[in-house]
Amino acid sequence: MKKIFLLENVNIATMCRHIDAPFGAIKNGAMLVEDGRIQWLGTATERVSRNIDYGEVIDGGGCWVLPGFIDCHTHLIYGGHRANEFEMRMAGLSYEGISKTGGGIQHTVNATRKESFAILQHNAQKRLLRLLSEGVTTVEIKSGYGLDCANELKMLEVIRALDQELPQTLLATCLAAHAVPEEYKANPDAYIDWLVNDFLPLVSEQKLASHCDVFCETVGFTYQQSKRVLECAKSLGFAIKGHVEQLSNLGGSQLVAGLNGLSVDHVEYLDEKGIDCLKQNKTTPVLLPSAFYFLRETQKPPVKALRNAGVEFAIATDLNPGSSPCGSLLLAMNMAAVLFGCTVEECLAGITRVAAKALGLEEERGQLREGMVADFSLWDIDAPSELVYGMNLYSPSAVYISGKKVNG
Amino acid sequence: MKKIFLLENVNIATMCRHIDAPFGAIKNGAMLVEDGRIQWLGTATERVSRNIDYGEVIDGGGCWVLPGFIDCHTHLIYGGHRANEFEMRMAGLSYEGISKTGGGIQHTVNATRKESFAILQHNAQKRLLRLLSEGVTTVEIKSGYGLDCANELKMLEVIRALDQELPQTLLATCLAAHAVPEEYKANPDAYIDWLVNDFLPLVSEQKLASHCDVFCETVGFTYQQSKRVLECAKSLGFAIKGHVEQLSNLGGSQLVAGLNGLSVDHVEYLDEKGIDCLKQNKTTPVLLPSAFYFLRETQKPPVKALRNAGVEFAIATDLNPGSSPCGSLLLAMNMAAVLFGCTVEECLAGITRVAAKALGLEEERGQLREGMVADFSLWDIDAPSELVYGMNLYSPSAVYISGKKVNG
Repeated sequence: MKKIFLLENVNIATMCRHIDAPFGAIKNGAMLVEDGRIQWLGTATERVSRNIDYGEVIDGGGCWVLPGFIDCHTHLIYGGHRANEFEMRMAGLSYEGISKTGGGIQHTVNATRKESFAILQHNAQKRLLRLLSEGVTTVEIKSGYGLDCANELKMLEVIRALDQELPQTLLATCLAAHAVPEEYKANPDAYIDWLVNDFLPLVSEQKLASHCDVFCETVGFTYQQSKRVLECAKSLGFAIKGHVEQLSNLGGSQLVAGLNGLSVDHVEYLDEKGIDCLKQNKTTPVLLPSAFYFLRETQKPPVKALRNAGVEFAIATDLNPGSSPCGSLLLAMNMAAVLFGCTVEECLAGITRVAAKALGLEEERGQLREGMVADFSLWDIDAPSELVYGMNLYSPSAVYISGKKVNG
Repeated sequence: MKKIFLLENVNIATMCRHIDAPFGAIKNGAMLVEDGRIQWLGTATERVSRNIDYGEVIDGGGCWVLPGFIDCHTHLIYGGHRANEFEMRMAGLSYEGISKTGGGIQHTVNATRKESFAILQHNAQKRLLRLLSEGVTTVEIKSGYGLDCANELKMLEVIRALDQELPQTLLATCLAAHAVPEEYKANPDAYIDWLVNDFLPLVSEQKLASHCDVFCETVGFTYQQSKRVLECAKSLGFAIKGHVEQLSNLGGSQLVAGLNGLSVDHVEYLDEKGIDCLKQNKTTPVLLPSAFYFLRETQKPPVKALRNAGVEFAIATDLNPGSSPCGSLLLAMNMAAVLFGCTVEECLAGITRVAAKALGLEEERGQLREGMVADFSLWDIDAPSELVYGMNLYSPSAVYISGKKVNG
């Protein structure tokens, strides 16, 4: 039997660009959901005139409906935490000093390698449920704290297990090129050899990840090393993306865009040439303001230049233990407004329509329109802008994934 | 019958200064609670050797126990919101431009005056429950959006109703001197006349507030006007405090401290003379980092100078619709570390022991020690520093107020 229901007495922030209103809003609207997809949506008046056929009727109580939020950049599977490092940093220690005490990414790699599958899954699940509690229905998760065959596979298999366990849609990204592992410090190229010759083909064969990412940075991999990884990934059929231009400009954006990558993430040091390249190749920049905040960075991404060029950007939590222990996509959005000067409309688009594009999901998710998956949340607020303005001030009254109520 | 229980298998962050360990920690500890107060606490070994008499035993599962958090500065009763103002500000409008569209505090005053008692209570209750969900067991709430007799009383009566409804301990502060109401713009002194001659005596008589506050600022009240309010309040038996040195230095800290006030709040522009005065009079400065963040301020409070002078500071949310729509005391604490350079230990003290002092509750709350009220929360974390480091990453596994489990 078909599962069908009509949600009425709601204001709908469709986030569709073709609807000429802020947030693509349909005030006093209704939405028909059939078998997990949006079958129809429009105004209450249209509903009556079209004589829509519906099953169950749900009264939305005047709430605003928003598309399920999409966190398109996370590292939320990890062992341990880095609170001690944070504590030392706040007490005045330098990065160098912290590094000497065994801090930094290697700390998390060691902790993740040591951690059992079950504990990694349990803790990641808690983080995913926090995101779900604020209406995040799709989450990208990266590997990258294993940095060897067994542990990178372990992380990717945890993502698969979580995907089966939780209602959210999870996307797995292989980020084995996150950092040069201790074992390869003397010869990073040999690590790249292993990645392109052995590991990426293995991940592809086992279908453990759909996306492949690389950290192209002075403290990560060079342009040439990143190029080898991404070209290999592309040839294997992975969707590709990159951590680029966070601490310096190595030309990573042009590399990723030139290979028709989906997204370039961080981009604090992105320049005009890079922006042109993104525009030409329809590659989406992803802003990660909570990492900028947490690391007390001062170089902001070129929001105005992106806006002027007509390049839309996504916003994500970058949830990770070192540079962004942030369990709230709404907070990341607030920081994009307050710290980067994004407008309220850019912020909400950045965690819905544009975030979907950053993951290659734009045909299915990130907007409320006919034919799309019925991922959405209901909010007892006066205006969608309240969600950007509030700092942990609001929770959704209900969350739906594929037309099923999952929370609230 | 006496209600008595022993909490064991926990690490206790007592936050007591006399215990010479970070966070006054007792590792592998136990705590005996009797009739809502802490009867005894110590190590598991001590418990055995002392042969403690107990009733029910609760296994804390290795969790950390922290004192109930205290939010010592909020304006969480208000009508409407100011998301539209935020939206205009993010889109580049100046304060002046916003003011011309009817923004600012007067907007909230109008909305609060219009709002019914029941709706004000309902919305404030939601905000208090958000705070409770992260372990905030004591909350100070100010009036100050009524600015006339009926509406200031309405706000104070809402606090009284909330105090009866909710398990948290609520403290009511009369902040009728929050802004010059529209009706008195031509003659602010006449408003002060009314406050000192009529309104404060009325509030005192009806016992609707225990504390009295004033906004001593160029956009609020002058030093002389503030002095009249606070001297009157003191003579009526109110505990006094002030919003001072937020946008400029009018000498408000010296005024409040000179009258033996409990706290001076904001203090971005506090100078050495003011710090001396706080030290001499044991008046507590309260930092409000989320307002600093939200308003994109650049002048930071003198944290180093306070530290050097040995003056401890509290940290609060300043929860209000205009300058700090922040529903998380943990986030405010994180911002105190990241934005103001407070240490992790200062941060946790700032929402426990020192926040209690800022409200005059230091004999009863803010620490876990024998004789104190058994307000505490349990956290499944490795170290208390994680609570400062995380951005909406953790929730308590249980919250107790006066020895009663209220959440989780």
